[in-house]
Amino acid sequence: MPSLGLTLEYDGRDFAGWQRQAQGQRTVQGTLEEALARILGRPAPVVGAGRTDAGVHAEGQVASVALEGAEAAGPRALAPAVLARALNAGLPGDLAVREVWPAPEGFHARRDALGKLYRYRIWNGRAPSPLRSRHTHAVARPLDLDAMAEAAASLVGTHDFASFQTRGSLVRHTERTLRRVEVCGERGAEVWLEVEGNGFLRHMVRALAGTLLQVGLGRRAPDSLGRVLAARSRGAAGPNAPAAGLCLIRVEYGFRRNPGPLDSQPG
Amino acid sequence: MPSLGLTLEYDGRDFAGWQRQAQGQRTVQGTLEEALARILGRPAPVVGAGRTDAGVHAEGQVASVALEGAEAAGPRALAPAVLARALNAGLPGDLAVREVWPAPEGFHARRDALGKLYRYRIWNGRAPSPLRSRHTHAVARPLDLDAMAEAAASLVGTHDFASFQTRGSLVRHTERTLRRVEVCGERGAEVWLEVEGNGFLRHMVRALAGTLLQVGLGRRAPDSLGRVLAARSRGAAGPNAPAAGLCLIRVEYGFRRNPGPLDSQPG
Repeated sequence: MPSLGLTLEYDGRDFAGWQRQAQGQRTVQGTLEEALARILGRPAPVVGAGRTDAGVHAEGQVASVALEGAEAAGPRALAPAVLARALNAGLPGDLAVREVWPAPEGFHARRDALGKLYRYRIWNGRAPSPLRSRHTHAVARPLDLDAMAEAAASLVGTHDFASFQTRGSLVRHTERTLRRVEVCGERGAEVWLEVEGNGFLRHMVRALAGTLLQVGLGRRAPDSLGRVLAARSRGAAGPNAPAAGLCLIRVEYGFRRNPGPLDSQPG
Repeated sequence: MPSLGLTLEYDGRDFAGWQRQAQGQRTVQGTLEEALARILGRPAPVVGAGRTDAGVHAEGQVASVALEGAEAAGPRALAPAVLARALNAGLPGDLAVREVWPAPEGFHARRDALGKLYRYRIWNGRAPSPLRSRHTHAVARPLDLDAMAEAAASLVGTHDFASFQTRGSLVRHTERTLRRVEVCGERGAEVWLEVEGNGFLRHMVRALAGTLLQVGLGRRAPDSLGRVLAARSRGAAGPNAPAAGLCLIRVEYGFRRNPGPLDSQPG
């Protein structure tokens, strides 16, 4: 089926997460689908690459939508740039379409994703930072970034991440591959945890962040993560770090997205 | 009189500006004075270096407060670090004290200021950016940054800035010196206007930004700013750019502030 891909940015604070809810809560998927339905004049279900939790932000979430009949080809075909502008005109201020791009036949944003990059932002200043508070988790005590980096390195590779999963989602297996787990930034200022992998279990990045924060605060040894993985038990890892610090930065696919017209600059 | 200096960060969006209002609007000064009064057990008027407008943010606003009797010296003297922590415990999430520092006798945050640095942030992406919308002004059409930089350079130096002033404040003269007016960033992404000077008239930075934006959009010639200055008439310049893009970054004084305990890192 002919499909479009949508790259989305949102401030997750006032959304009850990505996934449409039966109970009429405000969600990213629901808000996007309503705007699409108004433009297309038909129900327009979308699939998101990652089902971000309530309060989690995105700089580069990806959604797919299947096109019907005349929307895909011919004189009434939907131009990606036109759809992007129409959507942005109708979406609320905390959700925007960065790009709309023609996707391969039958494109499915979640199944086709080869990898994702998440960033967890920590504000490590001793005083609160009002300008950063919406998008960071504040930790006032100075973090030992070397210890965190050592622990982070031991997570890279293919492991069973059952210890970092919140139960309740149906997953066949809990093995995932992390290509990169990096600690960037400066103690006493802003610190980023960047986690790149082929797939993520429910709450996995927040559980990784919560566990690495315990290492940074000296409450857990930097070389203990192997044992946490081996335990395959949620209780072995640290708590989920708060949603506000997390942002889905990028989703990778096995094809090159055409640079959408919204990102190109004329003249 | 013994005094303390306070370095403040705030998200200006939900404040009706810096200055305390008779009518009970929520202001930065009013909120800070209430928190101080609760801690000191007495009315505690503060002076701010810059009277930021409604919606304008600050990363490094400075306020001064005079100490009374036992607060300044002796066994009941107020330790800056203790005051900072007590204030942050009582302040709302959009206002924080970054640092409290001992100031010279009779310190007055506004009169003693030798200079200020303001940053005006523009989001020049063609699609809106929900994660930046609180702290930037969005301009979708691509800006000509070279033209803006040329115009900005002609503002550096000592000039009569009457054309960039909103009437209504009592100022003796309208001559000011700008040490730096710079355009940084990337067309199609985030662009910063950084303006550093010895003093600023009412709405001056927003009027400069609004005029430079007209240059960037091709509506005003880059070499026309000299004529705008010479006109000494508000109508000669562009409109005030919106408050949300503006942030007071730093205030300079003729003495070295002791690095406050909130910014230092033990261990």
